[in-house]
This record gives sequence, C-alpha cells and structure tokens, in this order.
Amino acid sequence: MAGSSALGRESMRESTPRVVIVGGGFGGLTAAKALKNTPAKVILIDRTNHHLFQPLLYQVATSVLSPSQIGFPIRAILGKQKNTTVILGEVTAVDKGNNRVFVSDADRLDMPVTYDYLILATGATHSYFGRNEFEKFAPGLKSLADAVATRNKVLQTFELAEAEEDPSRHRDLLTFVLVGAGPTGVEMASALALLVKTTLKSNFRRIDPASARIVLVDMAPRVLGPFSEHLSQAAKQRLENLGVEVRLGHGVDQIDGDGVVVAGERIASKTVIWTAGVAPSPAGKWLKVETDRAGRVRIQNDLSVPGHPKIFVVGDTAAFEQDGKPLPGVAQVAMQQGRYAGKLITRRIAGGKQPAPFSYFDKGNMAVVGKGFAVLQSGKFQMSGLAAWLIWALIHLQFLVTPSLRLSVFLQWAWTQVTGQRGSRLIVNHHASAPASPAVEEAVLSSKRHIA
Amino acid sequence: MAGSSALGRESMRESTPRVVIVGGGFGGLTAAKALKNTPAKVILIDRTNHHLFQPLLYQVATSVLSPSQIGFPIRAILGKQKNTTVILGEVTAVDKGNNRVFVSDADRLDMPVTYDYLILATGATHSYFGRNEFEKFAPGLKSLADAVATRNKVLQTFELAEAEEDPSRHRDLLTFVLVGAGPTGVEMASALALLVKTTLKSNFRRIDPASARIVLVDMAPRVLGPFSEHLSQAAKQRLENLGVEVRLGHGVDQIDGDGVVVAGERIASKTVIWTAGVAPSPAGKWLKVETDRAGRVRIQNDLSVPGHPKIFVVGDTAAFEQDGKPLPGVAQVAMQQGRYAGKLITRRIAGGKQPAPFSYFDKGNMAVVGKGFAVLQSGKFQMSGLAAWLIWALIHLQFLVTPSLRLSVFLQWAWTQVTGQRGSRLIVNHHASAPASPAVEEAVLSSKRHIA
Repeated sequence: MAGSSALGRESMRESTPRVVIVGGGFGGLTAAKALKNTPAKVILIDRTNHHLFQPLLYQVATSVLSPSQIGFPIRAILGKQKNTTVILGEVTAVDKGNNRVFVSDADRLDMPVTYDYLILATGATHSYFGRNEFEKFAPGLKSLADAVATRNKVLQTFELAEAEEDPSRHRDLLTFVLVGAGPTGVEMASALALLVKTTLKSNFRRIDPASARIVLVDMAPRVLGPFSEHLSQAAKQRLENLGVEVRLGHGVDQIDGDGVVVAGERIASKTVIWTAGVAPSPAGKWLKVETDRAGRVRIQNDLSVPGHPKIFVVGDTAAFEQDGKPLPGVAQVAMQQGRYAGKLITRRIAGGKQPAPFSYFDKGNMAVVGKGFAVLQSGKFQMSGLAAWLIWALIHLQFLVTPSLRLSVFLQWAWTQVTGQRGSRLIVNHHASAPASPAVEEAVLSSKRHIA
Repeated sequence: MAGSSALGRESMRESTPRVVIVGGGFGGLTAAKALKNTPAKVILIDRTNHHLFQPLLYQVATSVLSPSQIGFPIRAILGKQKNTTVILGEVTAVDKGNNRVFVSDADRLDMPVTYDYLILATGATHSYFGRNEFEKFAPGLKSLADAVATRNKVLQTFELAEAEEDPSRHRDLLTFVLVGAGPTGVEMASALALLVKTTLKSNFRRIDPASARIVLVDMAPRVLGPFSEHLSQAAKQRLENLGVEVRLGHGVDQIDGDGVVVAGERIASKTVIWTAGVAPSPAGKWLKVETDRAGRVRIQNDLSVPGHPKIFVVGDTAAFEQDGKPLPGVAQVAMQQGRYAGKLITRRIAGGKQPAPFSYFDKGNMAVVGKGFAVLQSGKFQMSGLAAWLIWALIHLQFLVTPSLRLSVFLQWAWTQVTGQRGSRLIVNHHASAPASPAVEEAVLSSKRHIA
C-alpha cells in the first residue's frame, strides 16, 4: 500500500520538484528560507517543533532565559512560506536508490518521504571520545530538554545542601565541574559563577551559595582554543576573577557518581556537565558515503555529496575544507552553507548554470565571560571587555528569529544586568514526585538528618 | 541519632518560637509574609521550588505564557525575609504528639522538622469522583508539569494530524474534550479556540487547525456555576461564538484511550483534559481530625484545628463555613486565611489577646472567555465584555508576585492581543526521543502512510 501510494505520488510530482530538508537548525532553516520563491515543494523535517538558538542554551541551563526565549516553532517561522511544509519527525534512514528518506514520529514508524533534492542539515550531538559511560554522570547541552535537565540539577543541588545538616556533605553538593573549556564551557562556568554570587545571594540560610566551587577542566593548554592566545589569557583571567578554578593540560580520567578524577586527583562533585566534544549526526551512515575521521560527510565545493549531485550536506554534520583547514562547527558556517545549497537548488530548477564554489566568509568569533565582558576576534582584529560584550549582545539579539524574542531577551538581559535576578529559576519535575514514604516510625529511627 | 539531634534542637529553641508553614501557594506564602517582623523562626516547606500563580495555569497549557512567567522561586520571594527558611521537600506526615512534621526530598526520607505553630496550606489536587481510572486518559491541570504536559499533548496532536494521510483519522486527533465547565474549563476551552483560529492559522498544509472540534462537558445545567445565571448565559453564548460545543446536563460516563462517552454518545478524541473536581490534600489524614465529606479539615473560627490551638489549616484544604455556606477554593480565601493565621500567631507570640474571628471578604469572581471578554461578579454587581476583561487583566497582573513578572506577562498579553502569536509554543520531550526504528524494509512493507 505504501509502495503504491509512494509511486503514485512520484508519478504525480513531475511538474513540481520536491526539496526535502532534514533539520530545522541554522543550516536547514536558512536553506528553507532561501527556497522561499522557488517553484518547488519544500518539506522541512525536524525531530523537535522548534528552531533552537543554541548559542544561548547555556543561559537556559543557568536560569537566565526561559526555553521559549530561545526556541520558536519552525512552523510559525515558515507559516507564510506557502511552498513549504513542516513535518515533526525523526529521520531514520535515507534510501538513495529510490530518492526517499524515512521518518518516524510519536505514532508512526518509517513513513517514506520522496525527494528530488535533499539537504541534510542534521547537526551534531555530544561526543564522549569513546567513553560513553561518562554520559550518565556528565550530561551534555544540546537541546532544550538537556538545558532544562541541567537547570533542574544545578538548582536542586543548592536545595539539597540547604536541607543537609552535615557540612562535610555541602562540599560535593556545591562543587560543579565543567569538562571542556571551549566557548560553551567558558560561558557556562562564568554564568554559574554569577548565579552563585548574585542571583542566589541571601536566598539560603544554612549554606552560602557564593562558597560553591566551580571547576573548568580541559586537556588543552588554554581556554577558548579557537581564539588568539591573548584573548584566551584574558578569558582565563576573567574566569579566575569570578572564582572559577581553571584546570588545563589534563583531561578527566574518570567520571562517576562521586565526581571526577583529573590528573590523578579526585574532585568530589554531584554536578558534572559535559561541554567538550561534539559528534556529527549519522548522516554519513545513512548515505553510506565517505566521512572524515569524526564521521562528518565529505562534500564537494558545491556542498553536494560526491556522486550524488542532488544530495547536499551542510553545517556541523559536513566536512568542508577551506584553505587546507576544516570549517568549524558554528552557526555562521551552517547558515552560509544552508543559503548556498538553497540558492544552488533554485538555480538548478530554473535551469541556470552552476554557481561559483562555496566559500565561507568568517565574520569572527565571540564568547561571553561573566557580566558585561566578552572576547571578540575577527580576522586580525581582536578586543575584549564591555564593548565586546555589547557587540556580542547586539549580534545575538539580531540573530534571534523573531522581533518578539528580541524584545523579550533584551528586557531579560537588561533586568538581569541591573538586578542580578534571572528569568527562569524553576525546578519542574517532569517525572514523578518525591520518593514514597515508608511508615513514619521506621523512618525516624533510620533518619540521620534534621532540619534546623 | 535523629532522635537525640531533634531533642537537642527542641531544648535549644525555647527562646525563639518556630512556625512551620507547609505549602508555598497563595495561603502559605501570604502567611509567611505576615510573619515577616515576628520574633519567630519561620520555616516554609514546599514540594516545588516555586510559588505558582495557578489562575493563569491554563495560559501555559495553551502556549500563551511560559512556565517562568507564572512560577517564581519561593526562595527569591522570601530571600530578604531574614527570619524565614525555605525547604524544598514533601511533607509526608504530621506527628502531633511531638510537634513535628516529616519531610522527604530527592535524597532523604522523612526528616523531622519540629514546630511550635503549624500552618497547613497544602491546597488541593484533582478529584475524579471515584473514577481514578480516568486520570490516565484525562490528566488535570494543577502544576507547571501538568500544564507543560498538556501543552505538549495539544501541540503534538496537530503535528500528528499534519503527518496523517487518512483524513478520517484527523477528526479524533483534532477533537479536544474538556470535562468540567467551571472557570478552568471555560478559560481553557476559549483559549484553545483562539489557539486554533488565530495562532495556528496558516501554519499547516494538510489540515486546517480552525476545523478542530472543542467540546466542553459538564453535568451541571450551566457553565460557570458560581456566577449569576445571566453571566453564565453570556459566557456560554461567547463560547459558542468561538465555536466551542457546550454540552450541559450530562457528565462523562466513560473516558478511555479513544475518547469519552457523554449521555450514551461516544465522542472520539485523543485529547481529553480534566477540568472538573478538586480533592483536598491529605492534611486531614495527617492530623487524624474531623473533615467534611470532601476530606477538608474542619477548622474553628480562628482557623485552628479543634483541640489543637497551635495548628492552623488554611485555603483549599480547609473547610470553613460562613453564613451557612462553605467558602470556595479560590486564591482570595487562601490569602485572607493565610494572612489571618500569620497575624494571629504574631499576636500570640507577643502575648496579645485573641483577635476577632476570621471573616472572609468576598471581592468577587472573574473568568475570561476568549479574546478581550470576561465576566465579573462582585456581590450584586455584575458585568461582562471588554471592560470586565481589562479589569481582569489589571487585577491578575497586580497579583503576580514580582514587578518583572508583571511587565513580562503584560507585554506577552499585549503581543498576543495584537498579533495572535503566543509566547511559548514548544514541544519539549523530557523523556525519550522518537520510537526506535526497525529495519527499513520491514517498516516500508507495513507502513500505511506517506507524507505528501
């Protein structure tokens, strides 16, 4: 039945080419927008209903912003783009031979979706460098669900410490370890430092949140590897001024329920967050084509897959070398590649000639380190401090996907700068409530704790 | 160990009386604030970290507001109130003989907390009138987790319908049944009607969200029972203008995975929401004292429990009659009772005389029905329409717990009024991702669906 239905569709669709885009992140969404006026049926498939502004995910994890300030329905963004259909579902396979992908959703498995052109913009997830057993103890930060889980965990540790009579247990509850000192690790560490020093101040009676220990670990010799040594040094200094312990030159040897081991030393911690490696999506496996060592699909200079001129791979899941160096996994690359792929397909459909090869224009890198301080590097130009932070804030506001989000995030940042209060300091337990209670008498006998 | 520690504390605390408040809702929070300058150690215990503005919970469930706009950390509200400690935990029992309650949190079971005065403000939950098997299919709306789950479910049904080729399956996916036509049911029904008619408009290609069927069921002969017949009629008319089917005079006989049965007729629906009865917290069972038929603790005219002059019960979990009628389970009652209990304890500690008995001052009732329309009744005065909605909006903004929430909710409402866009249309899956995929070939053979 499915077969005949699919074939029926295929024979019908001769006139209007179908462009299937997998992923509604920076790459996929930009590609879809570039196809706005193209005489094609565009189908964008994502496994979440929202476009996520990942660069601000750490601000959800640290209670500054609420999930809805960095996540916006893809359907609402593309609602007025009449040639585009949005499907909520997870792509499970690509059938190159029959030009179709398979999509599963909450109710259905492997629905076939046929394409004439395919853009895979499926991004990346965490990589534990072969130590997947770490994931249970050191979750990463890639989705809104991840960020909310981290927020719950961070806020919960302060609650548990406040209820804990034994001060020796406060130490590991109030120790936070971030593994990976790239932009996410640095931004997260400094946001945590501000959380404990300003927002949580005077909210507790038994513990002093400002006494929390925040440790940032990386095997690299400096923080913010992609930046100049001068800016790395400035960021490190700033982190240390905020009270963050920066441990460089050694990775973590071990992560478990009691904390981490770094260079032979155990750091007891109940909250370890993974801000290190990323691994590309399985696009390379779906396509069964050549990938780089990390698993990213090697693409040609028009972003198509060798031997498959109608299949394009963009963003974090693509391996593209320019000037002998692979392009980094950042939003700018994904957006420029998505736009290029969308325009190329438009030109092909119109019967135009092949455009010039893709070339990435690097506008530069930025990272925030605490309150009103950022580092910024663009080509040979570099700066740090408040002015860099203002530029960072303006650019990030500008790239939010709607005016309502821009206003809302702007007001929240202004409020947080002035008052230290954050916008979304919630623990929402989406699973069960507190543990079941045994008979009172029995529990009293065994209980070792008492709330003063 | 716990025993000696607890006793040790008890002998130490002679000088400063300890007031334990259970519940950080309207009743408990107001009581805590009334004890601000009292020479007492106040301990407020809640099982969530936030004070929840429950009257706007339906706006989270229908994507208008984000959870952080109606939930605010209790700890932050009371942070500057030096005599007050906040504990995140769930009370599991009260030991009247030894003046203590037992609290469990994520790490610990039944920690004893001793009190000199106890205020139980533990609210209410859903009641399925003895048909608890309905809960699985018709969840209620009492917590932020409930509201987010309902939001996910509502948004998800539109996604599933959009991906569904068989139009006969669209009907039950796009039918929403609300059981209970009190304020929550009416507000939820009208907010859903606006969602499908405005916010979701032109966001889908295969389905027309405006064709969704919204059914509001109640066994009562009219909607909004507590209001005058005239206002009930106005609200019903307004609901029908919005396209809501109002079915009165018959309760639901059955709720299951396929929908509901009302007066012998089956209404196929994948989304049934329980907006009917409430049941009080187990405060009466903890205390082993007399309750009314619903299980609410009968209290004296100073809100104390008969025979226990230092134990007070306030809000939805208390049964208090005035002029021969039980007070309703609304925020105003809880706040006035909480304030009274806090002031009474302050006076007792100061050695002053017993105040006049508690008397509820009814400021009136309001309910929103769709865009820019509310009904309002205060004593013999009643009104409906835009002016009533403006009063509703002003009063609700005023009762939000911080200025930042007031500004943020005000801006969101203005934005939604003008553009129809909502602030938090997210599906965030806090559990697992899409179902695991079996081998592609097998699935293709069995799949009956195809995305056009």
